Amino acid sequence: MGAQKRLVVIGGDAAGLSAAAQARRLRSAEELEIVVLEQGPEASYSACGIPYWIGGLVADRDRLIARTPASFTAQDITLRTGTRAEEIDLAAGTVTVAGGERLGYDHLVVATGGRPARPPVPGLDAAGVYGVHKLADGADIRAAIAAGACRAVVLGGGYIGLEMAEVLQTRGLDVTVVLADPLPMAQLDTDMGERVCKAMGDMGFDVQTGQPVREIEVDADGAVAAVRTDTGSYPADLVVLGLGMGPETALARAAGLAIGVTGGVDVDRTQRSRSHPEVFAAGDCAQTFHRVTGEAAHVALGTHANKQGRIAGSVIGGRAARFAGVLGTAMTKVGDLEVARTGLCTTQAEQGGFDFRAETIEGTTKAGYFPGAAQITVKVITDRGSGLLLGGQIVGGPGSGKRIDVLATAIWAGMTAEELAGSDLSYAPPFSPTYDPVVVAARVASRVEQG
Amino acid sequence: MGAQKRLVVIGGDAAGLSAAAQARRLRSAEELEIVVLEQGPEASYSACGIPYWIGGLVADRDRLIARTPASFTAQDITLRTGTRAEEIDLAAGTVTVAGGERLGYDHLVVATGGRPARPPVPGLDAAGVYGVHKLADGADIRAAIAAGACRAVVLGGGYIGLEMAEVLQTRGLDVTVVLADPLPMAQLDTDMGERVCKAMGDMGFDVQTGQPVREIEVDADGAVAAVRTDTGSYPADLVVLGLGMGPETALARAAGLAIGVTGGVDVDRTQRSRSHPEVFAAGDCAQTFHRVTGEAAHVALGTHANKQGRIAGSVIGGRAARFAGVLGTAMTKVGDLEVARTGLCTTQAEQGGFDFRAETIEGTTKAGYFPGAAQITVKVITDRGSGLLLGGQIVGGPGSGKRIDVLATAIWAGMTAEELAGSDLSYAPPFSPTYDPVVVAARVASRVEQG
Repeated sequence: MGAQKRLVVIGGDAAGLSAAAQARRLRSAEELEIVVLEQGPEASYSACGIPYWIGGLVADRDRLIARTPASFTAQDITLRTGTRAEEIDLAAGTVTVAGGERLGYDHLVVATGGRPARPPVPGLDAAGVYGVHKLADGADIRAAIAAGACRAVVLGGGYIGLEMAEVLQTRGLDVTVVLADPLPMAQLDTDMGERVCKAMGDMGFDVQTGQPVREIEVDADGAVAAVRTDTGSYPADLVVLGLGMGPETALARAAGLAIGVTGGVDVDRTQRSRSHPEVFAAGDCAQTFHRVTGEAAHVALGTHANKQGRIAGSVIGGRAARFAGVLGTAMTKVGDLEVARTGLCTTQAEQGGFDFRAETIEGTTKAGYFPGAAQITVKVITDRGSGLLLGGQIVGGPGSGKRIDVLATAIWAGMTAEELAGSDLSYAPPFSPTYDPVVVAARVASRVEQG
Repeated sequence: MGAQKRLVVIGGDAAGLSAAAQARRLRSAEELEIVVLEQGPEASYSACGIPYWIGGLVADRDRLIARTPASFTAQDITLRTGTRAEEIDLAAGTVTVAGGERLGYDHLVVATGGRPARPPVPGLDAAGVYGVHKLADGADIRAAIAAGACRAVVLGGGYIGLEMAEVLQTRGLDVTVVLADPLPMAQLDTDMGERVCKAMGDMGFDVQTGQPVREIEVDADGAVAAVRTDTGSYPADLVVLGLGMGPETALARAAGLAIGVTGGVDVDRTQRSRSHPEVFAAGDCAQTFHRVTGEAAHVALGTHANKQGRIAGSVIGGRAARFAGVLGTAMTKVGDLEVARTGLCTTQAEQGGFDFRAETIEGTTKAGYFPGAAQITVKVITDRGSGLLLGGQIVGGPGSGKRIDVLATAIWAGMTAEELAGSDLSYAPPFSPTYDPVVVAARVASRVEQG
């Protein structure tokens, strides 16, 4: 004995728990004590599932909790919920938790997660304004609906915004979506975003674009009454913040860990802090890099959090591992419309200095004669010289979105449009036209490539 | 003038029409006359859609016809339906059609398609025994059902067999599937085929495995009465041949074109005959090669036919093009069960001399808590030394099958399991768990790889 070391993980969600679990796989309890500090009441819940719980598609809140406390005990991982880390002392190698207790560590993983963006406007703290980040947010919104809220304003037209718009409409509310950007889904090109915007209008959403929110108007009781922009005032019993997620780095900043240009903790590909390599950061609090451009990126998503946590846990456990980057692959739906993207959009390709071309095709999700065949639009962006695939976007009916994974895999592997056009994708009338729409898009891109 | 050449295409379906259309894109009518000879009454129909027309999902036969005669006229392509090519004279450069007319050609594309396998047993020509190859087959089966057929026996447990079993059951028939193989879907490994077999049993199909058919028993009127194997006799009002498709090469053989080991016309990667490079062959009548093994292969599928025809048309039109091989990607469904495969199964990997390993994982198609999340099983086969992905198989509920395209793309690109495990696939609760099941399978394969 005596040689046991201690890993302290700050944050008990995707990144932190993946780090803990992977470190435990590689190091026994005799070798490594693992303590996870989680400020909230639960660890390991699916934030992405909260809209669907609000919408009633997921009946039970507990279904969003991926792991029980007992499962951590079984792994000899000490999970301390309701325990807020208040200070990291890098020189001393300690973490101080609320109440004053100091925990020494040999290895530290900072996994403090994300922080929902909040516009700097009056009234944001009014009763009836909700985030969609914690399980408690979900419970609050459900309670507000149960109490008779009829009119909802969703701020933001990204993934969370769209998902919340959908579920609130499902629950019978009139939904207005207010966004500062000219179109929903800012990660899409204009032509694709327009399709989303039009479809949302057809579904009965009131989409107000190009309007930064100026004030949350409150009534005499201090409850939300409306959302005001320069253009109008939109009555609301309920306001949902769907403005995206930034890195939560207050603790890391205070400790002196270097922060990157994206605002996330600056880490190398092993998830080690660039300023303090003995400290790891992973998940929504950390900066990462884009696989195509090599540039710094911040993408708050559970998949990356899981993988980065796993990388940190591997390295701590003594196994070499490197994070391989992100493509910004993302997918969502609103009503029957599926929306997905990966890699670079044209704006990113321009900013990245690529000489690129973009091609867009229209197709169907199944053989055209098959019942339920829905329209699908696929856009691909390729490097003009090499023909390498740089990015892809898909908007279409049921069965469209997951096709983005083919483009994500092809970009990941460094394929050209021509190579993808020749590839052997599955075909059966209930699932695809003879040429899958993704292949058609790649073929058009490669045909153009050939002049 | 005077320099106009003539392209003759034998066969007016996927391969032949793709060749014609691509040649026309590259050569004007002044440069190249294009004549397509089709023995049947229609060109360009979807054979893969016939089961669904029989099943009533596709209401109108004409919906299976991809292109109208007028569309060929508009392209200056002379389509001669009902015109059977009877002889190719390679030395003279002529094709003789029924009736004796001889057409000279400068370029020839043989696209005679496939021939449904027929077991050499008595009774196969009885009334009530049908293929599923031509539109007329579909019409005949529909008529038999309308006339009161109650009991169907489907011979063969491949894609056509399963699809026909499904649609006949949908139409209210009792369906027995009789197959010589020990399990349905012979292109799957045993463990995956067993899942399909069990699921089919649960759906109410009577699946009789390991029983080569010995005789089609006929009644006094010469109509089918039962299918007899060594084990039993299965009463039938209707027998469907779903035994797969071989190359139709009678014309090519008679002309002296070299035939490959698979029975298809032996062609190089530009679709030129290896024995007579001035002649092209494409589609179900041609031999092709497997991208992973490099070995000769025959896969009768519209996607390959389209691409190969396009290659031939490009080369004839003066543009360099090469066919890039097949992975044997295939997909089908029976009831709610989706079945898909790509690359090498374990039998093929063994035959190919690979030192491989196979890993199988269980997952869900959506986030586990999301309504409609269905079970999915993913099997991946990797090269033991390099970690390269060799093959994949998927069996599962709705949303499972098309995920094979990620594996097909990864194998196509020469990715390792570890690379795929690190890739950035889409995640949203209605469409995927945080880690897509395909990524989980790749990760398990790569973890094992690391020891």
